[in-house]
Amino acid sequence: MKNLNIGMIGYGFMGRAHSNAYRRVNNFFPLEYRPVLKAACGRDLPKVRAFAETWGYESVETDWRKLIERKDIDAIDICTPNNTHKEIALAAAKAGKMILCEKPLSMNTAEGEEMCRAVEAAAGGKGVANMVWYNYRRVPAVTLAKQLIDQGRLGKIFHFRAKFLQDWTISADLPQGGAALWRLDVNAAGSGVTGDLLAHCIDTAIWLNGSIAKVTAMTETFIKERQHTLTGKVEKVGIDDACAFLARFSNGSMATFESTRYARGHKAEYTFEINGEHASIKWDLHDLHRMDYFDHKDESTLRGWRSIHVTDGDHPYMKHWWVPGLQIGYEHAFVHQVADFLQGLADGKPAGPTFRDALETQRVSDAVLDSARSGVWETIGEQK
Amino acid sequence: MKNLNIGMIGYGFMGRAHSNAYRRVNNFFPLEYRPVLKAACGRDLPKVRAFAETWGYESVETDWRKLIERKDIDAIDICTPNNTHKEIALAAAKAGKMILCEKPLSMNTAEGEEMCRAVEAAAGGKGVANMVWYNYRRVPAVTLAKQLIDQGRLGKIFHFRAKFLQDWTISADLPQGGAALWRLDVNAAGSGVTGDLLAHCIDTAIWLNGSIAKVTAMTETFIKERQHTLTGKVEKVGIDDACAFLARFSNGSMATFESTRYARGHKAEYTFEINGEHASIKWDLHDLHRMDYFDHKDESTLRGWRSIHVTDGDHPYMKHWWVPGLQIGYEHAFVHQVADFLQGLADGKPAGPTFRDALETQRVSDAVLDSARSGVWETIGEQK
Amino acid sequence: MKNLNIGMIGYGFMGRAHSNAYRRVNNFFPLEYRPVLKAACGRDLPKVRAFAETWGYESVETDWRKLIERKDIDAIDICTPNNTHKEIALAAAKAGKMILCEKPLSMNTAEGEEMCRAVEAAAGGKGVANMVWYNYRRVPAVTLAKQLIDQGRLGKIFHFRAKFLQDWTISADLPQGGAALWRLDVNAAGSGVTGDLLAHCIDTAIWLNGSIAKVTAMTETFIKERQHTLTGKVEKVGIDDACAFLARFSNGSMATFESTRYARGHKAEYTFEINGEHASIKWDLHDLHRMDYFDHKDESTLRGWRSIHVTDGDHPYMKHWWVPGLQIGYEHAFVHQVADFLQGLADGKPAGPTFRDALETQRVSDAVLDSARSGVWETIGEQK
Amino acid sequence: MKNLNIGMIGYGFMGRAHSNAYRRVNNFFPLEYRPVLKAACGRDLPKVRAFAETWGYESVETDWRKLIERKDIDAIDICTPNNTHKEIALAAAKAGKMILCEKPLSMNTAEGEEMCRAVEAAAGGKGVANMVWYNYRRVPAVTLAKQLIDQGRLGKIFHFRAKFLQDWTISADLPQGGAALWRLDVNAAGSGVTGDLLAHCIDTAIWLNGSIAKVTAMTETFIKERQHTLTGKVEKVGIDDACAFLARFSNGSMATFESTRYARGHKAEYTFEINGEHASIKWDLHDLHRMDYFDHKDESTLRGWRSIHVTDGDHPYMKHWWVPGLQIGYEHAFVHQVADFLQGLADGKPAGPTFRDALETQRVSDAVLDSARSGVWETIGEQK
Repeated sequence: MKNLNIGMIGYGFMGRAHSNAYRRVNNFFPLEYRPVLKAACGRDLPKVRAFAETWGYESVETDWRKLIERKDIDAIDICTPNNTHKEIALAAAKAGKMILCEKPLSMNTAEGEEMCRAVEAAAGGKGVANMVWYNYRRVPAVTLAKQLIDQGRLGKIFHFRAKFLQDWTISADLPQGGAALWRLDVNAAGSGVTGDLLAHCIDTAIWLNGSIAKVTAMTETFIKERQHTLTGKVEKVGIDDACAFLARFSNGSMATFESTRYARGHKAEYTFEINGEHASIKWDLHDLHRMDYFDHKDESTLRGWRSIHVTDGDHPYMKHWWVPGLQIGYEHAFVHQVADFLQGLADGKPAGPTFRDALETQRVSDAVLDSARSGVWETIGEQK
Repeated sequence: MKNLNIGMIGYGFMGRAHSNAYRRVNNFFPLEYRPVLKAACGRDLPKVRAFAETWGYESVETDWRKLIERKDIDAIDICTPNNTHKEIALAAAKAGKMILCEKPLSMNTAEGEEMCRAVEAAAGGKGVANMVWYNYRRVPAVTLAKQLIDQGRLGKIFHFRAKFLQDWTISADLPQGGAALWRLDVNAAGSGVTGDLLAHCIDTAIWLNGSIAKVTAMTETFIKERQHTLTGKVEKVGIDDACAFLARFSNGSMATFESTRYARGHKAEYTFEINGEHASIKWDLHDLHRMDYFDHKDESTLRGWRSIHVTDGDHPYMKHWWVPGLQIGYEHAFVHQVADFLQGLADGKPAGPTFRDALETQRVSDAVLDSARSGVWETIGEQK
Repeated sequence: MKNLNIGMIGYGFMGRAHSNAYRRVNNFFPLEYRPVLKAACGRDLPKVRAFAETWGYESVETDWRKLIERKDIDAIDICTPNNTHKEIALAAAKAGKMILCEKPLSMNTAEGEEMCRAVEAAAGGKGVANMVWYNYRRVPAVTLAKQLIDQGRLGKIFHFRAKFLQDWTISADLPQGGAALWRLDVNAAGSGVTGDLLAHCIDTAIWLNGSIAKVTAMTETFIKERQHTLTGKVEKVGIDDACAFLARFSNGSMATFESTRYARGHKAEYTFEINGEHASIKWDLHDLHRMDYFDHKDESTLRGWRSIHVTDGDHPYMKHWWVPGLQIGYEHAFVHQVADFLQGLADGKPAGPTFRDALETQRVSDAVLDSARSGVWETIGEQK
Repeated sequence: MKNLNIGMIGYGFMGRAHSNAYRRVNNFFPLEYRPVLKAACGRDLPKVRAFAETWGYESVETDWRKLIERKDIDAIDICTPNNTHKEIALAAAKAGKMILCEKPLSMNTAEGEEMCRAVEAAAGGKGVANMVWYNYRRVPAVTLAKQLIDQGRLGKIFHFRAKFLQDWTISADLPQGGAALWRLDVNAAGSGVTGDLLAHCIDTAIWLNGSIAKVTAMTETFIKERQHTLTGKVEKVGIDDACAFLARFSNGSMATFESTRYARGHKAEYTFEINGEHASIKWDLHDLHRMDYFDHKDESTLRGWRSIHVTDGDHPYMKHWWVPGLQIGYEHAFVHQVADFLQGLADGKPAGPTFRDALETQRVSDAVLDSARSGVWETIGEQK
């Protein structure tokens, strides 16, 4: 078995989720590669030490540039706020390291393009392995949806609709910025729900239904000013609290997308529905182990939405876990992504989404934010 | 079109439900017969007059014996408390009237046998048309279940389970007896949930899965004494507030049955589930327009419980109502029962359940109550 | 009790639904007025006779102008295709008749304004009673939603989303036009899903959440040509098969609306969800007797979406029907609307939606169709 | 941090589930103790080596007696078939080891009593720490149910009902016995669904609602003979394929229990429902992250079953995992059980269920099997 030495930058929510995936993948998936938690990096030494201790990292760094220089690191995992992705990725690529970057890829399309060029040109032009953590592709129910669409079960697709609803920022007392709340600070996050939540929806949508051709959008910032954690001052809120957009896919299907942090009763309600000529599919992150499926080819009196408990051995990824009927949870999608990344290294076939794949989501996100400002339809066009 | 003159005895909940069915059936079902609301009968003249006015009965009576004697009445509908069914039915049969009797048929098996003999021997041995209002058979989803079982879709049936849960008698302040609460008075009702609610479950079970061979049961009266509405005195409660029993069907399948009026959160939650070798079915009165269906013959990765919205034109009874997707409600099962009764008259094929069919439910109910007392399994045996 | 003599024009799906409502209302609701089915009108004499026979209309007419002239008719019910509403309504208003008009009010805003002026100026300036059959307002669960919002339970409303999904026109073999399929013929219907289905969503939305300020929309006609039933020729399809739009309410809340006849697995899936500061509400026509409710004021560990079975005696309209736990169906909303219309006559307070209320829906629908053509946001503005 | 050296016997499904729990617990829970995977034991050397390699056990043994003798082992985990539990536990107790035993505790009550005496008398009378892996108590939704009942939220409890439904043994071609199918061999398993599945239901029931006083039961073996994997011969099947029983709790509440491996459409459908005077609770293993709750104290028009997504930081165990709205899965209950066991060691308060707690489940299981044979109610009585 080959070791793959991981250098992790950041130790927040995603630092934990990725670390857990690295630690568990070889218990469940037969692979040539084994991730080794070599070093954790963060600016606050006591905190990064505590993190390293909890997760079993062999060493710590407080300067990410030093981590990147280390010879004993094979892959850099970027779990820091969005406004640091580009700089770290460029340095890591230059050092010839593989890169696993938390989503969204970048603050905007321009940054993302620079990052794509960097990883593709790295290692003397051979490029370095790269991936973005759009983890929901690898929830078994979502992967099953992909298989069904690719098999043509749905026929021509007429409609796609996705929502990602949360309710955690309704209070005006919540500050913005700092380690815990950088997602509310436009300078750190780039945008609000668009980059944080809709990016997931867009990534899944493109993966399942192909490219998006044009969009028209509206955004809202319900609470206009919040105290900033770092400055202590009440400052203008620059992010979008909510965003909805209409879209056309290149294949002609119509779509609605919506995300908000102001939907009471929803903590992480990411849902999508796809209506095709022959069949339809629904999925909901709040019951991520189920996929709803309607097949018009069923006998007419017995047609109905099937609630498929995606826990059987022949469902994607599931033979590696427990026995039929026993559900897995949120974190397992990250394990699957690591498994596929490692298998991709062994096979020489990169696991998606690569930086280049994720750039497409960035381009749609930018068009959405542009349209919210312009009030007209924005065209995405072909990626150069 | 032939008129069928109805004489209705009783004007409570069931008097309304049956009257509604008679009034509506010809608007929706093409039939040879037309029910005519000829006379309503009740002991309280102002109340029966108000009832007749609301529902369009042409006349009223305060003595049911007079009603039965009337030449212009073709059919007697018995909507009075259980302890009056036998006497009225015997008189009506003797007078050669058709009889539609509210469920349960009788206070006990002995009464029921007498009633069966009476309707079968009436009219000089030709018998009179007779039916018991076990309405749930004709909820379209339940009828669909019957069709699927008869087509062999389920294969050998292993399990049957039914529940009928309510919560309306939890308060100790509720009195027993009188017009509104005769169901709590053992002298008027014969039993509690067994005759009132489990009788529905048993009727459906036998219809769907054949005869029940033996049972073992337990009952409970949670509140032991209640004020009696008629006497004003606190009296012992003689009915069962809750009853559960295990059963074996003659075909070998195992069953559990349960009913109670002490299940918080349930108003009229009548559910059943049937597990067969190839397929399973679930149904719930709280969403009576749906049937859940699981077919093991579906492709393995796409197996799931289908939630069938039983509102399409090819579902039982549904072509007579609105358009696909639009649900009907509780009262429609009564309309279907009248439609089938009238069609049965035209065809000479009696619509079930007849008194004889309903007697079987009575025999199981009696065995259940016997077992609750004896603590051992009670055998039902073949009907003579 | 006062009679209200009804003259019904049209005998299709809505002719049946309205007739049923008139026939049943006095069985369940105590009212001063009693609708009398005086005359049914349609161009095909044998068909209108059969309809009159089934529903108990006393007479028939084949020319709606004659019907309007009849002295024994108090109210005209317009159940004909959309392109006839204006002409009939104008004539009926001129004749001083009350008017109950099937939705949508008209082919477009201009027609609708003319109709409003006519009913308001009729009867020498006193106006005639008028109403449009947006029946879903009176599904008890929807009325309950209205009550909760009006009580301030939701607080500030952030989001509204509504969908009306069907799948019945996916086949290219379906023709357009004629008695059965006039909804597919732009000349008879004015538009496709916008006027047929979204009009329901818009009416409910405005009723619940106030006026809509602006919209941006897209429409699609998936099948571009269909044979016309009347001409026998393949003709261009002029209606919208699907329509989605973003909206802003005047109160600042954001909305998404979508309707299609190309959503496999949905027959009449009209849903809405409202997210407020304190609480949220969901409803679905496929289970119309339930309302989902989330209250953030619940204790934190016990917060959850409540599935309220809207069948209790203290729920809107429900005390008039059966007993708690027993559901009503689609048709009952029409009964409630007649009950409220009749009560409004008695009280002198018109039941909504009046023509004037329904004009507002027409204005939004027109803006939606305009935006789908223009590609920009269209402002609705204040009604003059 | 103190190490707790684990010696694992058996490497099947439960061997994996427990190993996973030991490996993960310190990543998520702050604890004094850290489990160390010291040795894995199994009779097949290549297989136990592969297991040890996958899970990171430091050494292997092929004789469990040797494992028990090792000085470097603190705790023995028994994951072998039921017929070996007693012998191993007695030896481990004698050697002064802590014991974590997979459920059910034993083949029968007599064995279980011997085991309880052994662990309580071990270590010179001080006893050794002991626990049985009834993992479902520590699904957060189930723990929440326990909290609500203990707080008196439900008031007097009237009803308890539990089911555990599977469908994996319907085929007559499935053999019995051997490593994979020992659960079908009565000599290895002791019983069928009663010890395997109902034991879970009984453990939860007693934990939530107190002791069970008496039962009446029926069992069935649908497929009477199966080929035995070890002998190659067709042999009588000695286990129960299905079992249903009625029960009375000591507190007077009534119960139904049922389990089967012949319920099409159910893989691991463990459900329970509890109806109390004030509130009711439902839970379903197929959606284990949800608890349904009905509170009669809610305002009458807004009463409904709440579907609580048990994923918030103030729900049991959940603050240790991800963020609100993100669900955990089946395996996490084992992690919680290890966390509580380790915390119990630190606090000197044993985590339940101990052997003594689990003996109670054994006594009910035996009474159930006795009643299925005797046909009468069997009394459980007080534990001596």
